[in-house]
Amino acid sequence: MDIATFKKILDEYKRSVTTAEQAAEKLNSLNSERMRDICIDNWRGLRTGFPEVIFGNGKTDKQIINIVEKMLAQNTVILITRVYAGLEEKLSSIAHDIHFNERARTITISKPENFKGKAGIITAGTGDIPVAEEASETLEAMGIGTDKIYDVGVAGLHRIIDNINAIRKTDTAVVIAGMEGTLPSVVSGLVDIPVIAVPTSIGYGTHMNGFAPLLTMLNSCAAGVSVVNIDNGFAAGYQAGLIIKKIIGKSGE
Amino acid sequence: MDIATFKKILDEYKRSVTTAEQAAEKLNSLNSERMRDICIDNWRGLRTGFPEVIFGNGKTDKQIINIVEKMLAQNTVILITRVYAGLEEKLSSIAHDIHFNERARTITISKPENFKGKAGIITAGTGDIPVAEEASETLEAMGIGTDKIYDVGVAGLHRIIDNINAIRKTDTAVVIAGMEGTLPSVVSGLVDIPVIAVPTSIGYGTHMNGFAPLLTMLNSCAAGVSVVNIDNGFAAGYQAGLIIKKIIGKSGE
Amino acid sequence: MDIATFKKILDEYKRSVTTAEQAAEKLNSLNSERMRDICIDNWRGLRTGFPEVIFGNGKTDKQIINIVEKMLAQNTVILITRVYAGLEEKLSSIAHDIHFNERARTITISKPENFKGKAGIITAGTGDIPVAEEASETLEAMGIGTDKIYDVGVAGLHRIIDNINAIRKTDTAVVIAGMEGTLPSVVSGLVDIPVIAVPTSIGYGTHMNGFAPLLTMLNSCAAGVSVVNIDNGFAAGYQAGLIIKKIIGKSGE
Amino acid sequence: MDIATFKKILDEYKRSVTTAEQAAEKLNSLNSERMRDICIDNWRGLRTGFPEVIFGNGKTDKQIINIVEKMLAQNTVILITRVYAGLEEKLSSIAHDIHFNERARTITISKPENFKGKAGIITAGTGDIPVAEEASETLEAMGIGTDKIYDVGVAGLHRIIDNINAIRKTDTAVVIAGMEGTLPSVVSGLVDIPVIAVPTSIGYGTHMNGFAPLLTMLNSCAAGVSVVNIDNGFAAGYQAGLIIKKIIGKSGE
Amino acid sequence: MDIATFKKILDEYKRSVTTAEQAAEKLNSLNSERMRDICIDNWRGLRTGFPEVIFGNGKTDKQIINIVEKMLAQNTVILITRVYAGLEEKLSSIAHDIHFNERARTITISKPENFKGKAGIITAGTGDIPVAEEASETLEAMGIGTDKIYDVGVAGLHRIIDNINAIRKTDTAVVIAGMEGTLPSVVSGLVDIPVIAVPTSIGYGTHMNGFAPLLTMLNSCAAGVSVVNIDNGFAAGYQAGLIIKKIIGKSGE
Amino acid sequence: MDIATFKKILDEYKRSVTTAEQAAEKLNSLNSERMRDICIDNWRGLRTGFPEVIFGNGKTDKQIINIVEKMLAQNTVILITRVYAGLEEKLSSIAHDIHFNERARTITISKPENFKGKAGIITAGTGDIPVAEEASETLEAMGIGTDKIYDVGVAGLHRIIDNINAIRKTDTAVVIAGMEGTLPSVVSGLVDIPVIAVPTSIGYGTHMNGFAPLLTMLNSCAAGVSVVNIDNGFAAGYQAGLIIKKIIGKSGE
Amino acid sequence: MDIATFKKILDEYKRSVTTAEQAAEKLNSLNSERMRDICIDNWRGLRTGFPEVIFGNGKTDKQIINIVEKMLAQNTVILITRVYAGLEEKLSSIAHDIHFNERARTITISKPENFKGKAGIITAGTGDIPVAEEASETLEAMGIGTDKIYDVGVAGLHRIIDNINAIRKTDTAVVIAGMEGTLPSVVSGLVDIPVIAVPTSIGYGTHMNGFAPLLTMLNSCAAGVSVVNIDNGFAAGYQAGLIIKKIIGKSGE
Amino acid sequence: MDIATFKKILDEYKRSVTTAEQAAEKLNSLNSERMRDICIDNWRGLRTGFPEVIFGNGKTDKQIINIVEKMLAQNTVILITRVYAGLEEKLSSIAHDIHFNERARTITISKPENFKGKAGIITAGTGDIPVAEEASETLEAMGIGTDKIYDVGVAGLHRIIDNINAIRKTDTAVVIAGMEGTLPSVVSGLVDIPVIAVPTSIGYGTHMNGFAPLLTMLNSCAAGVSVVNIDNGFAAGYQAGLIIKKIIGKSGE
Repeated sequence: MDIATFKKILDEYKRSVTTAEQAAEKLNSLNSERMRDICIDNWRGLRTGFPEVIFGNGKTDKQIINIVEKMLAQNTVILITRVYAGLEEKLSSIAHDIHFNERARTITISKPENFKGKAGIITAGTGDIPVAEEASETLEAMGIGTDKIYDVGVAGLHRIIDNINAIRKTDTAVVIAGMEGTLPSVVSGLVDIPVIAVPTSIGYGTHMNGFAPLLTMLNSCAAGVSVVNIDNGFAAGYQAGLIIKKIIGKSGE
Repeated sequence: MDIATFKKILDEYKRSVTTAEQAAEKLNSLNSERMRDICIDNWRGLRTGFPEVIFGNGKTDKQIINIVEKMLAQNTVILITRVYAGLEEKLSSIAHDIHFNERARTITISKPENFKGKAGIITAGTGDIPVAEEASETLEAMGIGTDKIYDVGVAGLHRIIDNINAIRKTDTAVVIAGMEGTLPSVVSGLVDIPVIAVPTSIGYGTHMNGFAPLLTMLNSCAAGVSVVNIDNGFAAGYQAGLIIKKIIGKSGE
Repeated sequence: MDIATFKKILDEYKRSVTTAEQAAEKLNSLNSERMRDICIDNWRGLRTGFPEVIFGNGKTDKQIINIVEKMLAQNTVILITRVYAGLEEKLSSIAHDIHFNERARTITISKPENFKGKAGIITAGTGDIPVAEEASETLEAMGIGTDKIYDVGVAGLHRIIDNINAIRKTDTAVVIAGMEGTLPSVVSGLVDIPVIAVPTSIGYGTHMNGFAPLLTMLNSCAAGVSVVNIDNGFAAGYQAGLIIKKIIGKSGE
Repeated sequence: MDIATFKKILDEYKRSVTTAEQAAEKLNSLNSERMRDICIDNWRGLRTGFPEVIFGNGKTDKQIINIVEKMLAQNTVILITRVYAGLEEKLSSIAHDIHFNERARTITISKPENFKGKAGIITAGTGDIPVAEEASETLEAMGIGTDKIYDVGVAGLHRIIDNINAIRKTDTAVVIAGMEGTLPSVVSGLVDIPVIAVPTSIGYGTHMNGFAPLLTMLNSCAAGVSVVNIDNGFAAGYQAGLIIKKIIGKSGE
Repeated sequence: MDIATFKKILDEYKRSVTTAEQAAEKLNSLNSERMRDICIDNWRGLRTGFPEVIFGNGKTDKQIINIVEKMLAQNTVILITRVYAGLEEKLSSIAHDIHFNERARTITISKPENFKGKAGIITAGTGDIPVAEEASETLEAMGIGTDKIYDVGVAGLHRIIDNINAIRKTDTAVVIAGMEGTLPSVVSGLVDIPVIAVPTSIGYGTHMNGFAPLLTMLNSCAAGVSVVNIDNGFAAGYQAGLIIKKIIGKSGE
Repeated sequence: MDIATFKKILDEYKRSVTTAEQAAEKLNSLNSERMRDICIDNWRGLRTGFPEVIFGNGKTDKQIINIVEKMLAQNTVILITRVYAGLEEKLSSIAHDIHFNERARTITISKPENFKGKAGIITAGTGDIPVAEEASETLEAMGIGTDKIYDVGVAGLHRIIDNINAIRKTDTAVVIAGMEGTLPSVVSGLVDIPVIAVPTSIGYGTHMNGFAPLLTMLNSCAAGVSVVNIDNGFAAGYQAGLIIKKIIGKSGE
Repeated sequence: MDIATFKKILDEYKRSVTTAEQAAEKLNSLNSERMRDICIDNWRGLRTGFPEVIFGNGKTDKQIINIVEKMLAQNTVILITRVYAGLEEKLSSIAHDIHFNERARTITISKPENFKGKAGIITAGTGDIPVAEEASETLEAMGIGTDKIYDVGVAGLHRIIDNINAIRKTDTAVVIAGMEGTLPSVVSGLVDIPVIAVPTSIGYGTHMNGFAPLLTMLNSCAAGVSVVNIDNGFAAGYQAGLIIKKIIGKSGE
Repeated sequence: MDIATFKKILDEYKRSVTTAEQAAEKLNSLNSERMRDICIDNWRGLRTGFPEVIFGNGKTDKQIINIVEKMLAQNTVILITRVYAGLEEKLSSIAHDIHFNERARTITISKPENFKGKAGIITAGTGDIPVAEEASETLEAMGIGTDKIYDVGVAGLHRIIDNINAIRKTDTAVVIAGMEGTLPSVVSGLVDIPVIAVPTSIGYGTHMNGFAPLLTMLNSCAAGVSVVNIDNGFAAGYQAGLIIKKIIGKSGE
C-alpha cells in the first residue's frame, strides 16, 4: 500500500470527512473497476510500471471494446495480444493511432514514438518469427527499441557467430527457438547480457509442442538464461522490458 | 572473435613472424587449457563477464583441486557449487580466504568484500532456504549485495505484503518456492522489478520433485517472471547478477 | 439395502405370495429401469439425495429425450450438462419450464424457485466463466443460491482482497482458475469455509490443458482446498451442494 | 482486513497517538512474528478458524521447538505433522499433554477432550492406514470425532456394502485408497454426504506412486467426490473438519 | 515350422524334383503373397487359428479391395476394422454376404451363422458402446456368441450387481469403461471367469483420452483382469475369442 | 447373491426362526470377518474360484500370521506374495507344509500335489526370472502345471522359434519381458493360444522402470495379447490360471 | 575453418589488398547470405557434404521460391521436405527437372541420375510408407540407391525372415515402424549392418503418436540400432546417406 | 537361414543319414546352447558380425562365469558390460588376458591388439566420461581405434571448434552429453561424418535423468544425428563400430 494515498485517506478520516467504513471502502474502490464479468486493475501501472495488458484470447469483441474504452480514459498505451485480424477495424470507431501487427497478432494503441534502450530479438528459424514479433511489439509498447536477428540457428553455427557483436551491443537478448532449442545456451555462452529464452511449438514428434526446447533451455549449462512459457513472446518481451527500464532508468540514458 | 587479438595475430603473420598454420594454431591455443579429462575455459570471464564456475557435483576432489590451482593463477574470484562438507579443508593447502556455506553447499575463494546493487532473495518456506543461500552466495561472488526475506509464502498472505516495500527497493528479486509455487506470481503482480523464479523440490505426491511449482511459474498470469531449473539457486543468482551488473554498470553507481 | 423395502418383500414371501426366485427378482427390478443401451438409476435420488444427472456429451438427442421422458414421470428436477444449443427446442415438445444456459451449456427442467444457503462462485479470469456457470446451474438445480465474483485473479491481488468479506459470508466457495491456478490457495488462506477448486483448460504451452493449475491446487500449501477434474464445473457445484445441504439441513435454516 | 482492528488503529491516529507511518507499521506488526528463517502466522486461527499447523518435514528439531514455544503462549491446540519418533521426548521439556501417534507420524499438544460431529475414515487396504491415521488425528485436533472403517476395498464388494449404513451416519467421509483407487467412487454412489478422496502411494509399476488412484478419483463418474494430494491425510482431515465445523456450527449441535 | 510341410518339401528334394535353392524358395513363397506396398500373411489362419484381420485405418479403398479379392479365394471369413461408412458399397461388386456395423465401424464378409460359447460384453456407459460393438463383431466373426450388457457403471452399483448372474454364465467377460474405469475391478471381484478390460477414451481433463482408466485397470486389486489398448475393442474381442475357442475346443461343446 | 444361501435365510425367516433384522444381519455376517485393521473376505473362494491371496508387502509379520491362522481353519491352499526371506520360519510354528520360493518371493501353504493343464512361462532375459517364478508359483497354487522357457528374447530370434512347438502345447502362455518388451508380440504371432504379457522393470534410461515394454505390449500388432501391471507375475499367473481352469473344467480333463 | 580459404584471405591482407576489418568481414560474408527473415547457409555443402535442405513446413511459398532461386545459382541438387501438392507447379517457372513425390511430400530439383551404394528401406506396415518414401527421396537426392521392402511387420514373422538376405546385401538399413515398433530390433538381431530406426505416429491410444515405438527402439536389446525423431524419414535417410557415402567413398566403389 | 548349412543338413537327409525329424532337430540345436536359466546365442557372431555381449547387470557372478567358460571355447573376444569392481579377479581362475576398465565398468577378455579405423569419442562434460569409456571399450573390443576428446561442451563454444578438425579425421563420432544435450547438434552441423548421440543422466530437476538431452538430440535441427538410449555407451560404441567396420571393410584398409 502506497503511504501517500494511505495518508490522504487517513487524513480525511481524521478530519471526520469520512467514517471508518467509508475510509475502508475508499481504499478498495480506488483499486479496481468492476464491470459485468470483468474487473479492470486500474493501479497496475502504478504498481508494476506498466498498465494492464489485454489478453485477447477467449474474450469476446465486446468485452475487449469495453475494456479499451475504459483504458482510453487513462491516456496510456494499450497493448492487446493474441488478437485475430479484423479486430483493429472494430476498434477504429472508438480509438485512433491503432497499430496491428499481423504476424505478432497484436494491437497497440498510442504506441510510443521514441525508444530508449535496445533489446536483441533473435530466432533460430523462420517459423519462430511470430513469437519474436510479439516480443518486439511488447518491448516497443514499453518504449524500448529492438534489434531483430532472425533465422540464425546452430545448424549453421557461423550464422550466430557472425551476429554476436551486434547482440553484445543490446541491453538484454530475447532468444527464441523451437526444434531442439539450443540457441539460447550458445548465445549465453558468448555474451555478458541476460538472455530471456522462449521455447516455441515449432517441431514435431518428440518435440511435444515445445516441451523439448523448454527442457533444453531449463537445463542450459551456460549460466545467464531464464525461461518463459512456450510461445510466450509477450512474457519474454515484458521481462526484457522490465530489465531494460531499470538499466536505462538508473543511468538516466 | 575480438578484432584486436585478431589483428595482432594477423600482423605477426604479415611480418612473417608466423606461418598461416601457426596463426591458426595461435588463435585456438589462446582459448582454452587442456588437462586430462578437463578443458578449462580461460576466456569465459572476458566473454561473459564472470569466470567459469566449478560445478562440484560429479567431479573428484582431485579434479576440483587441479582446476582451482589453474584458476588461482588468474587472480579471480572462484565459486564452486554443489560441494560436500570437508572439501574446504582439502583446498586450504593451496588457497586461503576460503568461504564455505554449509546450507548453500558452496565454496567461494577470494570473495569480494564490498557489494554494489541489491538483489532480493525471497522464499516461500523454510525448506527453500538452501536454494536461496546458493543464489545468495552466487550474487555475492559477483559483488552484489542481497536482502534475504524467508518463509513468507501465500498461505499467510500478509507476510509477503508486509515485505513488499523492502522488495521494491531491490534491483531484481529471486523468488524461490516449492509446494504449489505461487509466490513469484504474487510478488510480480506487486512490484516493478524483474522476478527470477526458482521452483524447488520441496513437496510430495503430485509435486513431482518440483514440476508442480515449475509449471505454476511458467504459467504465471503476472508478467515479469522468468524461470530457471528446479533447485537451481546458482542459475537464478547468476541471472539476477547479470541484470544488476548492467543496471549498476550503466548508472555508474 | 433399505430394511423397510426388504421387509415388505420378505413378508410377501412369508405369506407365500411370491417364490424365493420372485423375491430375488423383485429386489433387482426395483433398482433400475433398462432401455436399449441405457440403464436409468431410479434409486439415485433416494440413495444420494439428488436424482441422476444426464451427461449430454456422447449421447444422441433421441437417447436424451427418452431419458427425460422417463424422469418426467418422477416429478423431479432434471439437469442435463454438456449440451449444445438447439437441444432445448427439441425437448420443448415433451417438457415445459425448460431453462437453457448457453455459457454453462446446461439445460434444467423444473428448476427450484427458492434457494437456501449460498455458495461463492469465484473465477480468476473471464475465460473461466463457462465453468463457473456450470457450477452455478448445478447448485441452483439443487436449490442453493450463489454469489458470483468473476475475474479476480492474483495478478491484481487487491481484486480478491476486496471481495474476501463477501466470500466469507457464503457457506462454501467454488474457486475456478486456469493459467497457473493460484487463486484457490490465496482464497483458502483468508477464509474459514471449505474451498472446492476447479482447474480450467484456459492457458497454453506448459499449461497442458489444465494440468498446470490442477497440480498447483493439489499442492496448495493452504489447508482447506479439495479439487475436482479439469473444467468440471458440475462436479464442483455438486460437491459444494452436498456440503451446503448438510449445513442447512442440520440447522433447519 | 477486520474492521474492528482497523478502526482501533485509525482512532489512535485520529487522536494523534500515532503517526501515519506508525499506523501502517502497527497493522503489519500485528500480523506475523519474525524469527531467523521463520515467520509465524499469528492471525491464522482468526482468519481460517484453526491455528497454523506445523509441517515437520524439512524443519530442524530446533526450529520446531522454537515455533512450539511461541505457539504455547497462545493457549491453543498445536498439531505437528510428518514427525519422526523421538521428537515427542524432545518437546516434553517445554510442553506437556503431548500425544504422539506413531502410525500417523503426528504430534498433538493440548488435544481437545470432547468431540462434536463425526467423520468417516475409510480405507481400501491395510497399507493405507497411516494416511487414515493422519486424517483422524487432524480431525480430532479440530475437535471432531471419527468412525474408522479399514480394509474394505472393492475386491470384496460386500465389505464396503456391509458398512454403508455406518458411513451414512457420519457428516463427511474421508475415503483413502491406493492401488487403482476405486473405493471413493463406489462409496459416493451409495451415500448423500460429501466424500473427500485421498490417493495413496501404495502400489507398484504403473501405479506411479499414487498417480493411478489420483486419476481414478478425479475422473470419478459418481458426483460428490473431491480430491486432495497423494498421501495427504492432513489435507483431507482438515477439509472434512472445515465442512463438519460448518455443519455443527449452524445447527448448534 | 510345421513338420508335415517341411517333410513334403524335403521329400521333393530327396526325389531330386527340386534343388536345394528351389526347396528354400518354396518354403518362403508359401508363407506370404507380395503385392505393391502390401504383403498378405497367408499362413496366419494355420498358425494362430484365425486369418489376417484387415486394419482399415490408413489403407486406401483400393488397397483394401485388393486384399479382400485375394482373401476371398481362400473361402474364409473376412473381418475389416476401423472402416468408414460407404466402403461396404464399394466392396459389393466383388463380394456378397457383406455385413456392416456402423457403431462398430466394422465390415464382416461370410460371417458364421451359428455360434458356440458365449462372451459377456459389458460397458460402464453409453459412450463405450462403439468399442463394445467392435469386440462383439470380432467375436461373432470367430463364431462365438455374445451377451451384451450396457450402461451398468458403478455410480449405480446395483445395476452391475443385478447382472452378475448373467455374466457368470458366460465363458469370458469383456468389460469396457471410460471415465475412471472402475467396472472391470468390480466385476472381477464377483465372478470366476477371466475379465478382459478395455479402457475407452470417453472422458475429459485428467482422463487423458483413456490413460486414467487404463491405469485403473492395470492396478486392479481384484485378480483376474488383463488389459488391452485404449478403445481397442478388436483386441479384447480377439483375446476373449482365443480363450473361448480353447474352452469349447477341449470340451467338444 | 447365491440363491441357495438366500433361500435358506429366507426359510428361517418364514419359519419365524429369525426376525427380518436378523436375516439381514446374517447375510452380512457370512461375508467377511473383521479383525483390527483387517477384514478377511471369506467368500472369495466361492465367488471367484480361489481364496483370498495375501499381498505380503506393507503388512506386518503379525498381521500376516493372524490372517494365516484364520485361513488355516478353512482347509484351503494359502498363497502369500511379496514376502521377505525369514517369514517362512515365523510361520512354521502355526503351519506345516510351507513352501518358500526365494526368487519368486512367495510362500505357499498346502500347495496341491497334482497338476492339471499346463501354462507356458516364457521370459526374454535372465533378469525377468523372479517375475516368472511368481507367476509359476501362483499357477501351481491353483493346481496347474507349468513349462518354463527362460532367456529366449528376440535378439537371437531362433531361440524363441526353437521353442514354439513346446509353447503351442500349453493351454495359455505367460510371456515376460523387460527391455523393449517385444517377445509377447512375436510369440503371439506364432501360436493359437492366449498370451498374457508381463512387462518387467529390467532396463534403464528411457525404459522408465517398465513403461517402455508396457507400451510395446499394449500396442502389439499381433492380436491375442492382453497385459497386466509391470512386474506383476501374480496377476499374470492368476489370469492364466482362471483361463486354464475353464479350459480343463469344461473338458473334464 | 578451412585453411585454404583462411590462407587466401590472410594473403590478401599481407599484400595490403585488404585491411584487417575487411579481412574479418570477408570471412563472415562468405559464410551466409542474409535475406529478410531468412539466412541461407552457403557453406553447408562444404562443411557437411550436402547442401542445406529446405524444411517446407512453416515457410511461405514466397520464402521457399526465394531460397530456391538463390540455391539454383550454386548448381546443386535441391531437396525440399514437408511440402504440399501444388508447390511443384509454382516452382516450375524458375526451375526445371522438378520431381514431386506425393506420398513423401518432397520436391527434388536436379536429382542425381546414377546411384552408388544401396540402402534398405523397410516398413512394418502400409501406413508407414510415407515416412519410408521421405527417407528414400533423401537418399536418392544424395545419389544413393534404395531397396524398398514394405509391410513386413513381426505379426507374420516369416515376412521379414523371407527378406533378410535382401536386407543383408544393402549397406545400411532404415527400418520404419509404428504400432509397437518391434521391427528394428528383430532386423538388427539378424544382420551385420547398421540399422537406423524410425518410429511413426501410426497407432492409437497408448501409442501416444509415436512415443510407444520410440521407446521400444531406444530400449532395443539388439545392438546396432540408433534412432531418429518420430516420422522423421528425412533424418533417417540423411543419416543412412552419410554412412553409405563414407562406405563407398573409402572403397572407391 | 544360410544356404550352405541348410544344404549340408538336406544332403544328410537325402543320403538317409538322418530322418526329417532329426534334420529339423539339427537345425535348431546348432543355433543356441541351453543352460539352466540361460540360453547362449552361438550364432550371433556369424549373423551380426560380433559375438554375444554379456550384459552384467542383474546376472549373478556364477551365471557370468558359466557363460564366459562356454564362450572361451569359441576363441573369440569377450565383452562384459555393467560389471562391478572385483569380478575381474573371480574370472582370473578361468581366463587370462583380462582387461578391467573401472570408469567404463567393463571387462574385456582377449581384446584385439591392433586397431583399424577410428571413432571420435566426444563428451560435453567430465561427468559424461564413464559413458564415453564404455563406448570406447566396446569399439576397441571390435578392433577399432578411438580419439577421445572430453569436456568440450558448448558453454565455451571455442572448445569444440578447436577440436573440429580432429573430429573430421575420424570415421564416425560418438557424441555424449548430459545437461541440455546440445553438443551433438553443434558437432553435426560442422562435420560430414555420422554422429551417434548419447544422452546421459548427468543433471538435475527438469533434466529427468536424461530425458531432457534425449529430446534435444531427437529434435536436432542438424541432419546426421541418430540417438541411442540414455547412458548407453555400449549401444553407441557398437553402432559406431558396425558403421566403421563397413567403411574399412569395403576399402580393404
